[in-house]
Amino acid sequence: LQTEVPHVIGIDLGGYHVSAAVVNPEGHLIGISERTVERFRPPAEVLAILVSAAREALERSGLGHEAIRGIGVGLPGTLRPTEGLCLFSTILNWQDVQIRDPIQEALGLPTCILNNVHATAVGELSFGAGKDVDNFACVSIGTGIGGGVIIGGEIYRGDSDSAGEVGHITVDPDGPECVCGNQGCLEALTAGPAIARMAAESLKLGAQSLLTDMAAQSQPIRAEHVFRAAREGDALAIKIWEKVGRYLGLGIATLITLVNPRRVILGGRVSQAFEFFGPSLKEEVRRRARVVPRDFTEILPSPLGARASLLGSAATALAEARCREVATVPKTV
Amino acid sequence: LQTEVPHVIGIDLGGYHVSAAVVNPEGHLIGISERTVERFRPPAEVLAILVSAAREALERSGLGHEAIRGIGVGLPGTLRPTEGLCLFSTILNWQDVQIRDPIQEALGLPTCILNNVHATAVGELSFGAGKDVDNFACVSIGTGIGGGVIIGGEIYRGDSDSAGEVGHITVDPDGPECVCGNQGCLEALTAGPAIARMAAESLKLGAQSLLTDMAAQSQPIRAEHVFRAAREGDALAIKIWEKVGRYLGLGIATLITLVNPRRVILGGRVSQAFEFFGPSLKEEVRRRARVVPRDFTEILPSPLGARASLLGSAATALAEARCREVATVPKTV
Repeated sequence: LQTEVPHVIGIDLGGYHVSAAVVNPEGHLIGISERTVERFRPPAEVLAILVSAAREALERSGLGHEAIRGIGVGLPGTLRPTEGLCLFSTILNWQDVQIRDPIQEALGLPTCILNNVHATAVGELSFGAGKDVDNFACVSIGTGIGGGVIIGGEIYRGDSDSAGEVGHITVDPDGPECVCGNQGCLEALTAGPAIARMAAESLKLGAQSLLTDMAAQSQPIRAEHVFRAAREGDALAIKIWEKVGRYLGLGIATLITLVNPRRVILGGRVSQAFEFFGPSLKEEVRRRARVVPRDFTEILPSPLGARASLLGSAATALAEARCREVATVPKTV
Repeated sequence: LQTEVPHVIGIDLGGYHVSAAVVNPEGHLIGISERTVERFRPPAEVLAILVSAAREALERSGLGHEAIRGIGVGLPGTLRPTEGLCLFSTILNWQDVQIRDPIQEALGLPTCILNNVHATAVGELSFGAGKDVDNFACVSIGTGIGGGVIIGGEIYRGDSDSAGEVGHITVDPDGPECVCGNQGCLEALTAGPAIARMAAESLKLGAQSLLTDMAAQSQPIRAEHVFRAAREGDALAIKIWEKVGRYLGLGIATLITLVNPRRVILGGRVSQAFEFFGPSLKEEVRRRARVVPRDFTEILPSPLGARASLLGSAATALAEARCREVATVPKTV
């Protein structure tokens, strides 16, 4: 019987980066390694960087290989986790790639893979704002918008593993085109590129703003600039965030009306600007979500921030390690 | 041990009617009684009509009282089923009414109550278009719009029992006011009164239509007239249904994107016009719900029609009767 505290390695793979960390059962990160990844490189090259980040994280943790029970990898795309396959990922530009086996072989540890949006939801459930509730939704706002729903303490996958896609519900029927082919999706109006577009359009119309200088120094303007300008009290930037909050509120009101979660947890880089878009978001939810008996569903930014996906991958690896250990305990102790 | 086939009485109570029927385990209606109910009468009066309808149904079935195992009652409103209470119902204008106990006493049979939208979903699950699927959604379109979601073969209630309220998601942010206090809800654009309003507005603008005569004969015009006119090939009526289909498609695309059901089953009186609004509804869903891997979630009118709620109440009563019987079987047979 193994009695020492089990540790795992959690890995978060994105289009531009990979993060790996040794994680203990309380969700503390013990050794961390971060790497940038050049976009659209072949899978073998990306997986080699991932493996080297995992080795570096282990080294930095000061723990030996024998202390690690498994590896969990979160990545964007449509996966077949039981087979270790990435069927399709637009962000990585991969199709039918075996991910689990090469990692497992290189590191000599049982490995599991899961979608990074699901990983984010599991991260909140295990170590974040979802620890004490059974029904909640995560909305991750970055370059795109992802959503994960936890029902009865488990990921709700829907009939074909695509439930919770809050980024692709229509909030403005005649709104701008979305990458998915629809128009007026929440993502097309409130993800990073949409916020940047709003700023660029306002500047083109001759609005006075700190953003004018920022745009002159760094083309093209990004959502990050709109955040920085708002922090400096720029009126145009503040107005843009208020508008983003209204669209987000409309989408989240729909999520609440259909799914009735106890909490809505906002993650992703854009959610760092919660102080600027939160008030108009909440006002819009109060105005639109009228049939939920509760006066107000809690809406809050994630306490885990960008670490939610890594922590959820680690939590999944921990859970699988426990299952294996229970299965191998002798029947009579 | 009871060996004969168990029967129950299913009851559907609405704002204007009550239907009761003896139902066998295959979902066949053996005796039926229908009564109209004057609107907004005191609970005791309504419950007396309900009890008398149940007695008539039993009499018409030709079965004796001893053949009946229980009663299931579906009604609109916020209920506390385990206590037999109706906390609040706008349609019945009731508040804090004990429903179960008076029925149970008057008829001498174990009685259970449930929300009629939940009852509709259970009806489809037990005897209708949901028999062979685990994840599906029901959308009931009548005077209002109700929605019920079945996840893993069970009603999904959400955190405060108000999940699936598809009638109150915003489909036109600047649309007409809804009874719920929001504006542009699906219900405010596609339920019976909204369809009637669209017709009345078109006629006011001088549109040529069979509806002109119908309106002259029976004021105010109702959704039913628009259905009859469409059946006779009236161009205005057909155009109205096409528009209704587009709004419904927008709302159902959102439902599919968030909940990812295998099927969407349309019930309620308005769904009788499916042949007229179905094509534009499906086109809009195809256009808007782009991130669901399946080419097309099935969308179909309910095979149970107006009987779904009564059948779901009966199925719930049957399930409860089975639980009681298992609990009372001697441990050694």
